[in-house]
Amino acid sequence: MQPRLSPLAECPCARAIEAVGEWWSILILRDALQGFTRFDEFQRSLGIAPNMLARRLKHLTEAGLFERRIYSERPKRHEYVLTERGRDFFPVVAALVAFGNRHLAPEGQALVLADRESGREVVPAYADAETRQPVNSNNVTVIAGPQASPGMLQRLAIMAARDAAAPVSPE
Amino acid sequence: MQPRLSPLAECPCARAIEAVGEWWSILILRDALQGFTRFDEFQRSLGIAPNMLARRLKHLTEAGLFERRIYSERPKRHEYVLTERGRDFFPVVAALVAFGNRHLAPEGQALVLADRESGREVVPAYADAETRQPVNSNNVTVIAGPQASPGMLQRLAIMAARDAAAPVSPE
Repeated sequence: MQPRLSPLAECPCARAIEAVGEWWSILILRDALQGFTRFDEFQRSLGIAPNMLARRLKHLTEAGLFERRIYSERPKRHEYVLTERGRDFFPVVAALVAFGNRHLAPEGQALVLADRESGREVVPAYADAETRQPVNSNNVTVIAGPQASPGMLQRLAIMAARDAAAPVSPE
Repeated sequence: MQPRLSPLAECPCARAIEAVGEWWSILILRDALQGFTRFDEFQRSLGIAPNMLARRLKHLTEAGLFERRIYSERPKRHEYVLTERGRDFFPVVAALVAFGNRHLAPEGQALVLADRESGREVVPAYADAETRQPVNSNNVTVIAGPQASPGMLQRLAIMAARDAAAPVSPE
């Protein structure tokens, strides 16, 4: 293993990306979080080639985000049900929705998040689970966790030095 | 344009994905959110081929997430500074970090988010910006926004019907 790849492999963000695999998979998870479970549903929704869809569903199942369940014996058919891990991917999709709505919908919003009971629009924001304070790039940084390798520690030290030298971003 | 692609193109999540481009770009944004701005810094951090990195930085600049600034006249050198749009990508990276730490760090965490002032670990959670209530896939769904096309409305109607028929997920 190359030393410079080691901190990359340790990074939880990089791991999450690797587990999901690629962009189509995020759209598959987006649909699954809305209740889709069947191959045909994903295919119609995404217009993705069947062999590509099959490969992505297989990868997400192996990565523990989907569980494959039989829903018909004759003919034998499987559906893909989100696991707890898969449902926990929701904040990533919600963050992408919020980013898209804020910055990439100049003509107005085509889709928004809403409370399931009341139907009221929900604008999700990141907050510290404990203090409920807003969490953003100005007040939060990354630090080494208990299992940081020497390579990760070095990487974070370089970043901290760089960060201290950088001008404060306007906001 | 094929009708089935229309709701996909309208979806803010799909747009966000398209704006960013691909996985490497998320890791570039992750590093930029930690203060990196220079080509060499990104390259050392990621171990990515220079021509690939140049292409990604160009794409992210064209998508409005980076602003290119001269920091040296002789030799002429540019750095890549996050725009407001780029800094707003923070929740996506934070969500990926949280997902990776929760599900993909069986040996312990190598990197955690922390308050910039106090150094205290921060576990970010999604909450409704107004009510501060937790936001997750069980209590939040998607509904049509004011600019939803007929294709999007049809898509959301199919999802709502599917969702109503689905068993409630355990949690």
